[in-house]
Amino acid sequence: MNLNIAVLSGDGIGPEVTAEAQKVLDAVADRFGHTFNYSQALVGAVAIDECNNPLPDETLELCKASQAILFGAIGHPKYDNNPDAKIRPEQGLLKLRKELGLFTNIRPVQAFDALISKSPLKKDIIQGTDLVIYRELTGGIYFGEKTLSEDGTVASDLCEYSKPEIERVAHLAFKAAQHRRKKLTLVDKANVLETSRLWRKVVTAISKQYPDVELDFLFVDNAAMQVILAPSQFDVILTENMFGDIISDECSVIGGSIGLLASASVGSGTALFEPIHGSYPQATGKNIANPLASILSAAMLLEHFNLITEAKTVRDAVNRAISEGVVTVDLNKETNFSTSQVGDVVASFI
Amino acid sequence: MNLNIAVLSGDGIGPEVTAEAQKVLDAVADRFGHTFNYSQALVGAVAIDECNNPLPDETLELCKASQAILFGAIGHPKYDNNPDAKIRPEQGLLKLRKELGLFTNIRPVQAFDALISKSPLKKDIIQGTDLVIYRELTGGIYFGEKTLSEDGTVASDLCEYSKPEIERVAHLAFKAAQHRRKKLTLVDKANVLETSRLWRKVVTAISKQYPDVELDFLFVDNAAMQVILAPSQFDVILTENMFGDIISDECSVIGGSIGLLASASVGSGTALFEPIHGSYPQATGKNIANPLASILSAAMLLEHFNLITEAKTVRDAVNRAISEGVVTVDLNKETNFSTSQVGDVVASFI
Ligand SMILES: CC(C)[C@H](C(=O)O)[C@@H](O)C(=O)O
Ligand SMILES: CC(C)[C@H](C(=O)O)[C@@H](O)C(=O)O
Repeated sequence: MNLNIAVLSGDGIGPEVTAEAQKVLDAVADRFGHTFNYSQALVGAVAIDECNNPLPDETLELCKASQAILFGAIGHPKYDNNPDAKIRPEQGLLKLRKELGLFTNIRPVQAFDALISKSPLKKDIIQGTDLVIYRELTGGIYFGEKTLSEDGTVASDLCEYSKPEIERVAHLAFKAAQHRRKKLTLVDKANVLETSRLWRKVVTAISKQYPDVELDFLFVDNAAMQVILAPSQFDVILTENMFGDIISDECSVIGGSIGLLASASVGSGTALFEPIHGSYPQATGKNIANPLASILSAAMLLEHFNLITEAKTVRDAVNRAISEGVVTVDLNKETNFSTSQVGDVVASFI
Repeated sequence: MNLNIAVLSGDGIGPEVTAEAQKVLDAVADRFGHTFNYSQALVGAVAIDECNNPLPDETLELCKASQAILFGAIGHPKYDNNPDAKIRPEQGLLKLRKELGLFTNIRPVQAFDALISKSPLKKDIIQGTDLVIYRELTGGIYFGEKTLSEDGTVASDLCEYSKPEIERVAHLAFKAAQHRRKKLTLVDKANVLETSRLWRKVVTAISKQYPDVELDFLFVDNAAMQVILAPSQFDVILTENMFGDIISDECSVIGGSIGLLASASVGSGTALFEPIHGSYPQATGKNIANPLASILSAAMLLEHFNLITEAKTVRDAVNRAISEGVVTVDLNKETNFSTSQVGDVVASFI
């Protein structure tokens, strides 16, 4: 297979971890006889620095012309504590999601046996956890109208959802459930929000088309407890944009390291693959960041193109690296492998 | 002291746990020579059943005329899965908060040594946890305009905040921090939401009046991780209504039981004291619900009226009951004390 991949490595540790994912993809290409062509482009704070635009037109064009996007991370502390900044790195990612129609973010969460001791949760709580979150990604309060009164004393954000927006992500989630343990949990706040009531209604209607999938509902506050109390009860979690942001980051603690969590953003345009960790500014340039989430995002990329054996080979290589202790300092203070060493070893296992 | 207390025991296990809190308050009145007068009123699903109104006028009038409100729980499954229900139990609580101007919800979270083994989190993670959440309670997306298009296919909820709404809760949070470990963390999503940027701006400005309090910021997705990864890093957490709902319920897992968490809702009108657990329909009428959160809410009520020794006596009695194993089935499957037995024993320790 021949794939044109746009590489948007972004800010902070983004470039370092993305380089390792490319290294592993190259090893896959070698072994399985594929050709992966990469084109780099700017996004985030680095793009603001160079072109005063977190998503330059060339970047967007490249993404549209590519078959997949390998994304690093975005964000820089200089914007976070400045509520007056008009241009922010995050806008680049949000605009990219919107322009490409990436209406679904898919985040699998699993407990890695070799890392159970790293989790803040007890072993009997996390064992057997294997869930996936389907988060709506281009609607809701992220993209609704925002206002700030002229005197700067009243602000608002509108959360809006339409039936088709809910339907398209719900269908993907139900289909995923059909290939898994056939359970779908809708997380909402239907006892308070009108949008949540619409979600409940639309998802309930759609569920009739998937009679083999069991549907249940959880208020988001209760969900925030349940994912910690008993994560193994979940199979597919479906939720709106803001709740998905919170719940999926919360779930990232289950496995013991956010450095292991990958995501895919899919929809009508070029799909994007990204580790869920951020730009981790403190670690930038030190060759200490954990590249496994980025490498596992590359595995999701392979799966997206139905390269199932290839994806499995990457996952197996990652598992082997973990169980042989070839991990960065966040996972093991003693062995202390560097970002590029971990990438080298995983690539060598392909 | 003479106190007129409105008792709104509400739905499900509400009446059972509230009765035990009253029992303990009576023991306090006896021992310390106070007079507590109780008046019962309807709220929630029971009020809908009887008067077709989750907050009947008489109930609101009684609350306004009282000095404190002892609240049970509200909610009934028959409303949860019916997105078309026009009248819902939750509206009673939301209206009560709004009408009484209860703009701040205060939720302390502590690890009880005797219960550390009950927590899904590891001992070294939770030890030393002692945080309190200040949640804005009468603004944001809970109370903003809600719309549903005529054909029922587009819904919206408006999240709106004004400077004064943020200021009044922020002042309470900063004052609390001054009497604690002098650290305040604002949880928001300032990289995406206009309202969050207003929060950051207003809270930063106010912080100048509290130079002894260290202020920091956390995006809500990161906060959802941090409260599980390292809860002892927090002192006072300040946040808006929806984020507060999620994060405070999430924090309830730390101590090992939601059955132990109390809250106070304060503002311009009669203060309200309430366990954070819900109506727990499955346990209703079985005399098995844990009354300790309701009893600890009564302790917060006493504190609110500066009855510090009295409040401490209640807390000590609760701690003693826990360490002597006098707890309901949720905390100990073997000893298996009933709701009323636990209340009797705590009252006898006063
Ligand atoms: C960077 C930020 C805008 C983004 C989001 O909130 O969607 C991130 O937290 C994520 O989850 O991908
Ligand atoms: C019952 C519900 C409306 C309420 C809320 O969301 O505020 C509850 O979850 C709470 O936190 O007190």
